[in-house]
Amino acid sequence: MRVDGRKNDQTRHIKITRNYTKYAEGSVLIETGDTKVICTASIEDKVPPFLKGKGEGWITCEYNMIPRATHIRKVRDITKGKMDGRTMEIQRLIGRALRSVVDLKAIGEKTIWIDCDVIQADGGTRTASISGAFIALVDAVNKLHKHSPFTVYPIRSFVSAVSVGIVNNIKMLDLCYEEDSHAKVDMNIVMTDAGEFIELQGTGEESPFSRNDLNELLALGEKGIKQMIQAQKDSLKMDSLWIGTGESK
Amino acid sequence: MRVDGRKNDQTRHIKITRNYTKYAEGSVLIETGDTKVICTASIEDKVPPFLKGKGEGWITCEYNMIPRATHIRKVRDITKGKMDGRTMEIQRLIGRALRSVVDLKAIGEKTIWIDCDVIQADGGTRTASISGAFIALVDAVNKLHKHSPFTVYPIRSFVSAVSVGIVNNIKMLDLCYEEDSHAKVDMNIVMTDAGEFIELQGTGEESPFSRNDLNELLALGEKGIKQMIQAQKDSLKMDSLWIGTGESK
Amino acid sequence: MRVDGRKNDQTRHIKITRNYTKYAEGSVLIETGDTKVICTASIEDKVPPFLKGKGEGWITCEYNMIPRATHIRKVRDITKGKMDGRTMEIQRLIGRALRSVVDLKAIGEKTIWIDCDVIQADGGTRTASISGAFIALVDAVNKLHKHSPFTVYPIRSFVSAVSVGIVNNIKMLDLCYEEDSHAKVDMNIVMTDAGEFIELQGTGEESPFSRNDLNELLALGEKGIKQMIQAQKDSLKMDSLWIGTGESK
Amino acid sequence: MRVDGRKNDQTRHIKITRNYTKYAEGSVLIETGDTKVICTASIEDKVPPFLKGKGEGWITCEYNMIPRATHIRKVRDITKGKMDGRTMEIQRLIGRALRSVVDLKAIGEKTIWIDCDVIQADGGTRTASISGAFIALVDAVNKLHKHSPFTVYPIRSFVSAVSVGIVNNIKMLDLCYEEDSHAKVDMNIVMTDAGEFIELQGTGEESPFSRNDLNELLALGEKGIKQMIQAQKDSLKMDSLWIGTGESK
Amino acid sequence: MRVDGRKNDQTRHIKITRNYTKYAEGSVLIETGDTKVICTASIEDKVPPFLKGKGEGWITCEYNMIPRATHIRKVRDITKGKMDGRTMEIQRLIGRALRSVVDLKAIGEKTIWIDCDVIQADGGTRTASISGAFIALVDAVNKLHKHSPFTVYPIRSFVSAVSVGIVNNIKMLDLCYEEDSHAKVDMNIVMTDAGEFIELQGTGEESPFSRNDLNELLALGEKGIKQMIQAQKDSLKMDSLWIGTGESK
Amino acid sequence: MRVDGRKNDQTRHIKITRNYTKYAEGSVLIETGDTKVICTASIEDKVPPFLKGKGEGWITCEYNMIPRATHIRKVRDITKGKMDGRTMEIQRLIGRALRSVVDLKAIGEKTIWIDCDVIQADGGTRTASISGAFIALVDAVNKLHKHSPFTVYPIRSFVSAVSVGIVNNIKMLDLCYEEDSHAKVDMNIVMTDAGEFIELQGTGEESPFSRNDLNELLALGEKGIKQMIQAQKDSLKMDSLWIGTGESK
Repeated sequence: MRVDGRKNDQTRHIKITRNYTKYAEGSVLIETGDTKVICTASIEDKVPPFLKGKGEGWITCEYNMIPRATHIRKVRDITKGKMDGRTMEIQRLIGRALRSVVDLKAIGEKTIWIDCDVIQADGGTRTASISGAFIALVDAVNKLHKHSPFTVYPIRSFVSAVSVGIVNNIKMLDLCYEEDSHAKVDMNIVMTDAGEFIELQGTGEESPFSRNDLNELLALGEKGIKQMIQAQKDSLKMDSLWIGTGESK
Repeated sequence: MRVDGRKNDQTRHIKITRNYTKYAEGSVLIETGDTKVICTASIEDKVPPFLKGKGEGWITCEYNMIPRATHIRKVRDITKGKMDGRTMEIQRLIGRALRSVVDLKAIGEKTIWIDCDVIQADGGTRTASISGAFIALVDAVNKLHKHSPFTVYPIRSFVSAVSVGIVNNIKMLDLCYEEDSHAKVDMNIVMTDAGEFIELQGTGEESPFSRNDLNELLALGEKGIKQMIQAQKDSLKMDSLWIGTGESK
Repeated sequence: MRVDGRKNDQTRHIKITRNYTKYAEGSVLIETGDTKVICTASIEDKVPPFLKGKGEGWITCEYNMIPRATHIRKVRDITKGKMDGRTMEIQRLIGRALRSVVDLKAIGEKTIWIDCDVIQADGGTRTASISGAFIALVDAVNKLHKHSPFTVYPIRSFVSAVSVGIVNNIKMLDLCYEEDSHAKVDMNIVMTDAGEFIELQGTGEESPFSRNDLNELLALGEKGIKQMIQAQKDSLKMDSLWIGTGESK
Repeated sequence: MRVDGRKNDQTRHIKITRNYTKYAEGSVLIETGDTKVICTASIEDKVPPFLKGKGEGWITCEYNMIPRATHIRKVRDITKGKMDGRTMEIQRLIGRALRSVVDLKAIGEKTIWIDCDVIQADGGTRTASISGAFIALVDAVNKLHKHSPFTVYPIRSFVSAVSVGIVNNIKMLDLCYEEDSHAKVDMNIVMTDAGEFIELQGTGEESPFSRNDLNELLALGEKGIKQMIQAQKDSLKMDSLWIGTGESK
Repeated sequence: MRVDGRKNDQTRHIKITRNYTKYAEGSVLIETGDTKVICTASIEDKVPPFLKGKGEGWITCEYNMIPRATHIRKVRDITKGKMDGRTMEIQRLIGRALRSVVDLKAIGEKTIWIDCDVIQADGGTRTASISGAFIALVDAVNKLHKHSPFTVYPIRSFVSAVSVGIVNNIKMLDLCYEEDSHAKVDMNIVMTDAGEFIELQGTGEESPFSRNDLNELLALGEKGIKQMIQAQKDSLKMDSLWIGTGESK
Repeated sequence: MRVDGRKNDQTRHIKITRNYTKYAEGSVLIETGDTKVICTASIEDKVPPFLKGKGEGWITCEYNMIPRATHIRKVRDITKGKMDGRTMEIQRLIGRALRSVVDLKAIGEKTIWIDCDVIQADGGTRTASISGAFIALVDAVNKLHKHSPFTVYPIRSFVSAVSVGIVNNIKMLDLCYEEDSHAKVDMNIVMTDAGEFIELQGTGEESPFSRNDLNELLALGEKGIKQMIQAQKDSLKMDSLWIGTGESK
């Protein structure tokens, strides 16, 4: 029995609230159980120096937690004077995940800033961030598209993420904090709605894992991804109709 | 007529949600109109170096905005590598305001960390932060008090804050962003429920103001403070019964 | 009786030395009692990014203390790696105060850098800085004006500042360090020579203050401002003749 | 045909030079083709604050490149004022990989600092770093063990790493820079000599990959890991005899 | 003829004002021509970590310029976020120079902080700083000595510094800014009153110099050092009587 | 007898390996005894802001040690958040030394970045860096010259450096770490092949030195410089033929 009564292949309750704040082009509150992340997408009419003049856009992500999103108050980065490694790793992962499903040429010389601010952290904040940020991204892209249609609609597919792990020798889907802190193996899986991998990060710092373990974890992960993508589709409804069409409005 | 139809001496709708997140000892979402701030109070069992061994506690505040709390995405402090002056000014103000109503000796060698994280900024974030943080502070102090009563209950009075200003030569209470950005004079008032001043900060960068102007602004401010303190009392109800008694449970 | 024998409504001796150092366009040593601040004004032929192309100028201030301006050696900002909040607060205040009396459009696309470096700190360094920096500013503006007259002379009025406070329940003007460190209420007042407020910052961190207290403190403050403005006028003599005329030479 | 004439399942030439520099407790130059990394292990007789008094040791890694290890000169971190995300990600990966094969309790309250300094970067620097750092770690641990035997020999198994990827739709082992920069899918695999996974990081930023692709890449990876572990064993010879025994000398 | 009419072997007018500010244990304004530096010595009852428990003291120096000490306003270190190399070089030089004439064991576990803050820079600020800081050091040490005599008086000799250089092929003593900015060879000489070298730093970045040039420059330097040491002795008078005696009061 | 059996006027074995790494325009490993430094020269087609549009080039140097180049692991600059003063001093010295023998106008608007990364530090790293960096510089300049000849060949002479010092009252050439750490006087000498000084830095922090001492140290230094320049010539052979000719290919 899991700490919150779930089955091993069951995700926590997923809730996606669109238009959560009023200024951002896309703004989503995603909740997976007690994990809560505000994901916004902001559009800026310029690109980083390395892309200037190439006619291509960029998507970049910043991730953070408010100090008391966690059991113990986390010191703010600016107080320590540097960003911690975990934060960097996570925001790089989110950025890659979203870029992987977007045609950056189709966007033109724009930057889409994704901000994922965790207000409550009960495990799985990075995967929730990816899943929620995708919805904010779609909303921001659609705002542009409705105002002035893209020649090629830039979002190629859904992208979604879940965590899986091995806790007390049991393989589980969507670990909460309590489970995560006892996991021997911990894996984050990012996939498209076509069932393909975008990113796979498994770590057995506490204990190595076998090829068999990997296969079972991937099976759980695929199950979770399907649920999350369904939640994304339910949330977007008609606003997802251009995804993957590559066509203008 | 004001931009949102209010009268000049009218505050925006105030909403205080206690226990907004689950880990902090005190956690409040305060909303004044479209301004939304998460205020948490966290208790740490040590004091800063300058107080070590003096048998006294400390209250300190950190204030921040998520990047898209505003019209234009605000670059994170850690990206710029330094905290901006406005942020420092605000968090110092909030800290002073809360310390002014607390008997730090009664707390003993503990630090109470106040975190005010703005998730939507429509003017008056610093005054909303003070008013909301006070509730989080009371909840955190009461958690300690219920568990192991203080000899002297440390909170001496309510503290609350509002902004007033002169916009188009009209004096107004509780400015929203649209008003604030056109204000010639801008004033933040922090008061106790006994009607005394804790802090008064008025600035006429755009245009100086007379003693008469000051008097009228203070009258408006006192009106606003009363409404805010009423909202605080309604929110705390029975949990405010020790405030100002200076007595143990 | 005050610690240095003054009456409660008496300022310390004010001494303003113009042309204190030889390179700056304006350079003043201001002394109020044992408080000594070097104030310089430097002119730069460009404006910060947010003003580029708007045909307007800017005035900005930096404030600092040499390490042994105080009883205890103060660690330099660069050693700690960050500016402290008090310093930021003060330099923002000085900048606002000076900008409030200058027609920035009249200046054109120039930045005037005000540097206030405290070499001895015996209370009231921020107010002395404002009063002294104003003289440095006038000297720098006049240097430009004599060389190539402004269409509209940009300085609209004098600006001056003093501190007041409540020490041992007595209201006092122009607190020295010894008094300041025992003050329950501390207020900085910035005014023009027309007797209007530019900035009012009162704080009762140690003890709240009433409306009556405020009125008495303001009366003391107005008295002090008059003395300081007289000292400024005596120092500038004929060099103040364009102030407020808004006319070209 | 690959750019350097190798078969798709062939690693580059591996060369491990022990005792490369004279001061470190363990010091290795590892070369995989033209990729060259100096890996040192340094022993310090204390642990980070979070482990103080727990009787456990710690292993941590820092990774860096000299500026001209790459085609284009890379600006030093200290010049930019912050560590870049890629560097952080890599050094966290190396640290986890080494800790995963060490019994930290057996080490006692010591920190082993692993430094991986890349002097020439031709692809695969993070995997070469793991493989080389392992040898430096063994040498440093053996130096301690020979001097004063551990009750339990702390190294539980070999750990080794290789990269695999998909370039022009062809799956390849041990990508050089030229291949890496054109790879659609890029995967780093860290394994023990028992054939179990320590870490698996695959990313398809340019193009998603299927479960089949994953299986083929893992097969290539396992092949590469075997070659790397053989090279490690050849290099250590008799000095590897305690690994995995968990016994004292 | 030199720019200010001096002979080639002539120093500028030297003026040493002791007790320049009131809080520091030693406080000196040194002027060499238009170069003006405030030098203070502050005593702290602890030593840096590397000396803890060794019964020895330490002397360290920090050097800085106020922004408008120079023709062009110099951006503050804290604004750039790092100390510039020239500043570091200079403060390290001053620290070494002063430590070289002090018996650090005799001082006991104390740190003497030397602060050299340049308020006007017309060439030779580092040498003026050394010469002035020595006086501040003596005053601070004597304050300790008078209060509680050292077993061994810690200052062993005078130390003084001058600059020499080659400008338009002419060798000159004590370069002002105008000369310094055209010098091909630039040399700073630090010596004791016994005529021995503490430090010699000559640089021919613009043009190499011969052994003969060196000899002539050293002769000029020795001349200048004598004048500076005389100025130091005149300034200290009876307060220099313990220097070099190594005896207690 | 010296610690490694050398005579007092004898340098350690010098070994210069050109083309040590494959990407840099110039890349050298210089070894003097156990001191080993990788020196690279990288060419960039732009100049720092202060030279823009002046038709002149620039040479700048960065110096660093890998953490375990020394007996005790040295914490990386980026971990401490600032560059240490010794590092700054050294890299400024190397930059000046190289610029002094190059006609920067002849180079045109290019920057040559010199990187000196010490991989083993046994004393004399700064002088080895200068001597090695010169070879890397020549190789980089020749690469440009062979591809597109300079009108004026920019390198005017050889530049080389050695250290000398007084250890146990004995004057010695080319101090190793063991000797350096006991030296009372320490001097670094930078000279051209014409026997002229570029830079002379002597410090007697532990004990002052006389004019006689200086002369003897300079004699030893000149001896060492000759050996080092011979080693440079042997290494460059025909590739040094343009040095000092000032002529195009």
